[in-house]
Amino acid sequence: MPQEEWKEIVARKRTEQAAAIAQFLESDPTSHDAQAGSELTAASIIEISDVETLVSKLQEGTISAEDVIRAYINRAIVVHKATNCLTEVFLEDAIARSRSLDKYYKTHGTVIGPLHGVPVTLKDQFNVKGFDTTLGYVARSFHPAGEDAAIVQILLKLGAVIFAKTNLPQSIMWCETENPLWGLTTFPDNPNFTPGGSTGGEGALISMHGSLIGWGTDIGGSIRIPSHMNGLYGLKPTSSRLPYMGVPVSTEGQAHVPSAIGPMARSLDSLIITMKSVIEAQPWLLDPGCIPIPWQNDMFEEIQSRPLTIGIMVDDGMVKVHPPIERALREAAAIFEKAGHEIIQWEPSLHKDCIAIMDQFYTADGGEDIRREVQAGGEPFVPHVEALINRGKPISVYEYWQINKQKIAAQQAYHRKWSAIKGPSGRTVDILLTATMPHPAVPHRTCRWVGYTKIWNVLDYPAISIPLTTVSASRDRLPADPYEPLNEADAWNWKLYDPERMDGFPVSVQIVGRRFQEEKVLGAAKVLETLRSR
Amino acid sequence: MPQEEWKEIVARKRTEQAAAIAQFLESDPTSHDAQAGSELTAASIIEISDVETLVSKLQEGTISAEDVIRAYINRAIVVHKATNCLTEVFLEDAIARSRSLDKYYKTHGTVIGPLHGVPVTLKDQFNVKGFDTTLGYVARSFHPAGEDAAIVQILLKLGAVIFAKTNLPQSIMWCETENPLWGLTTFPDNPNFTPGGSTGGEGALISMHGSLIGWGTDIGGSIRIPSHMNGLYGLKPTSSRLPYMGVPVSTEGQAHVPSAIGPMARSLDSLIITMKSVIEAQPWLLDPGCIPIPWQNDMFEEIQSRPLTIGIMVDDGMVKVHPPIERALREAAAIFEKAGHEIIQWEPSLHKDCIAIMDQFYTADGGEDIRREVQAGGEPFVPHVEALINRGKPISVYEYWQINKQKIAAQQAYHRKWSAIKGPSGRTVDILLTATMPHPAVPHRTCRWVGYTKIWNVLDYPAISIPLTTVSASRDRLPADPYEPLNEADAWNWKLYDPERMDGFPVSVQIVGRRFQEEKVLGAAKVLETLRSR
Repeated sequence: MPQEEWKEIVARKRTEQAAAIAQFLESDPTSHDAQAGSELTAASIIEISDVETLVSKLQEGTISAEDVIRAYINRAIVVHKATNCLTEVFLEDAIARSRSLDKYYKTHGTVIGPLHGVPVTLKDQFNVKGFDTTLGYVARSFHPAGEDAAIVQILLKLGAVIFAKTNLPQSIMWCETENPLWGLTTFPDNPNFTPGGSTGGEGALISMHGSLIGWGTDIGGSIRIPSHMNGLYGLKPTSSRLPYMGVPVSTEGQAHVPSAIGPMARSLDSLIITMKSVIEAQPWLLDPGCIPIPWQNDMFEEIQSRPLTIGIMVDDGMVKVHPPIERALREAAAIFEKAGHEIIQWEPSLHKDCIAIMDQFYTADGGEDIRREVQAGGEPFVPHVEALINRGKPISVYEYWQINKQKIAAQQAYHRKWSAIKGPSGRTVDILLTATMPHPAVPHRTCRWVGYTKIWNVLDYPAISIPLTTVSASRDRLPADPYEPLNEADAWNWKLYDPERMDGFPVSVQIVGRRFQEEKVLGAAKVLETLRSR
Repeated sequence: MPQEEWKEIVARKRTEQAAAIAQFLESDPTSHDAQAGSELTAASIIEISDVETLVSKLQEGTISAEDVIRAYINRAIVVHKATNCLTEVFLEDAIARSRSLDKYYKTHGTVIGPLHGVPVTLKDQFNVKGFDTTLGYVARSFHPAGEDAAIVQILLKLGAVIFAKTNLPQSIMWCETENPLWGLTTFPDNPNFTPGGSTGGEGALISMHGSLIGWGTDIGGSIRIPSHMNGLYGLKPTSSRLPYMGVPVSTEGQAHVPSAIGPMARSLDSLIITMKSVIEAQPWLLDPGCIPIPWQNDMFEEIQSRPLTIGIMVDDGMVKVHPPIERALREAAAIFEKAGHEIIQWEPSLHKDCIAIMDQFYTADGGEDIRREVQAGGEPFVPHVEALINRGKPISVYEYWQINKQKIAAQQAYHRKWSAIKGPSGRTVDILLTATMPHPAVPHRTCRWVGYTKIWNVLDYPAISIPLTTVSASRDRLPADPYEPLNEADAWNWKLYDPERMDGFPVSVQIVGRRFQEEKVLGAAKVLETLRSR
């Protein structure tokens, strides 16, 4: 592709997006008479963060699906103007879809499913028939998907209204959100900061009430990191629990550190109902890569009915967390302990080894996959991506197999470790409580250490990020004694801490469970939420 | 390693084996008074092919565990002398184990578990603490395993008595059983023929009543092929249904065409009780690579309670099956149809593509893994193995990822195909009925086409081989019109057919289910068994 042709493609894509938005804003709202009859204003509709609350209002007929999607689209456009979070938009299709749901409701007197009328957005990796799946690559522009991703098919069946896709970084392999095609997505509270990534568009959009449920992918923290930075709930399930079919990805074919799809939302209950509904739709009937494990309601209930044994890991032994992150963990532990749950220390043994192994997978091809994608479009490399793909030479398939053997051994070692450790009660550990990231939102191009999230990708454990508090410039001061960093990454991270600029930024904790225990993780999160709200 | 040192290692290994056998034969049986009090002779004990029947006798106290294992060991030694099926033996340990089970029974008045006293053997891939896991490689001699494989731990917990390991081919990647370390294993009915492979030692041993349950591995048919040739039941489950932990394998780390462990037995009920017991022992608690799907008894029962819809595929479109194989399939279909089950034709579309994709995985390293193993020991290559590893150059990791993408697409295509095809009743297909192999047992070094089995490895579907009939020189004549082969493999296979020499050889059919539907496959096999026995 000629040197500058990529700019033309970028211009065309952005013009089309702007036109679709303008067309929506200019469209005649008089054809929409429902809003007039709605008992809620658009502003109050987008204040509802809980899916079941919203759907109950649709079930009662208090509001219509069109009311809801119009409120959300209008808001999403505002958020987009502030943060540049959207990529592909299908606003008119969403309106049409909401009308067909309203018609269904009028005909049948009931909602079509548990997500009837729920506004949903998707990271720009999920195939939606008729629209591009760009992954943020220029060369993937103007190649519309021929079929909906499996999860899209299921969400539609459940009643969701999907109206837009959202931004992600070039290569997807980064904890920020920037690419030459769609540009830079910014953090809602401060445009000089990143909303995190790679599902950063969703992070900004949902936190500013521009969407209700967002879907991301996570191969190193890409759902949990933007959830953490934007004060959202985000779940990375075990990789084969939900269907990946129809979700193109960077370094596709590399399956040994598996990427997982998962939901993000402003309320825990919204995550729970989404997960439950999707799993009850039996996604394995669509995608043979999806494991047929039904929704384990017994597990979900059981974990909420007894004292928990919780391993807490404040420090991974490599990069020390910022003061507000540590405070959040101690607060969460105190909440659990006060209610009679058992907290034990969890040492980060094996973490360093696991990370050393997994890092070799991402670039085992010497960066060829990402290089080809970028070169096919002719766009420039984002500096971080360029560094990543030039990190090392390609290895042989034989070496690749040896790394996989090491990975399997590491997974077995961590499994044994978890099985062996018991609390004072004699019970094994139910869940781990740890940081999502060692810092809150940070300035663009400074996010580096994702060791607290990616360890659970190589182990393929379910993990949820739960917003717990916000940075307080007054309470979260640096310790009086200067901290002596352990290594370069630790020094870099510590230097990023700026309590004044970060004041008020969201801070989360991460809860981690064993393989295929999504229900246990969600149930334990529910315990924490219930205790907090008392 | 010096050129001829490998022969010394071979000599030492074989001498040790011979000594262990001699020691057992010379051991003082007077310490064993149970046999005298047993109500069954050793000859009648080894006639019991059903695990539950055997265990009920142990539960009643009619026989002791020591009676059983002595009967089996004596028989195994006879079979070994006839077929060269054993590798590592731990006969005295097994006697000691049986005595501890008898002691348990005397103390508690009941058996320790559903496999109490059941003689079990293992392909020489399963780690047994204190003994070598040779994989048939010289260089793996005298490196005893430090820990039992997960499945071994479970079998012991269930009460099994493991007493020996069995032969397999150099590289494991072959449908016969020969390696320079342990030599050639022969087919019980004719020493010039192969018992199949790679789990060929088990095939010969179990069929001649030298073991009751055998465990093999299957990455292309290695459980089902020797089951077929030796008239046994053999199940290859979905790969992650049972624990692979502690089972070293050839080309280890190659996980995209996954190997699976599975049981072999002389009775279907023995397979069922074994699978049920192992799964109910929750193997995922030991091995994080094992999926936590409990025994699906509802599925097992449901499939036996209604008319089935069965797809029959007599010909895979690449290699035509021999006349007795075709007859077996038609007979099985007729049995089903007579009982009101629905049989529809299943076209082999996608099979050729799937096989073309999967074949690239086995040697993606250019044969380096196998070459290293062989060269480390200094032994010669078996010709088939040498041809395999020199088949092609190593590919890059990037190319490897592309093949994996193709594989995933092929899996999705086959899944869609299966979901789309319906019988006249409107029901989707429950199971497929097809050949296990295009031929019965064949002369050594002539077995080639494993397309009927390996397709289910790349798709990772559960499949069982069920003995149905035997070759009849009079009934299974070649057709009057000479057959015009489609290709070289087809010509080779057709040429192998020799009704006179194969007269009486076992012939099976294969039943295949969808991913993680082991219970459906076993239940459908049970339907066939029940109908046959009427």
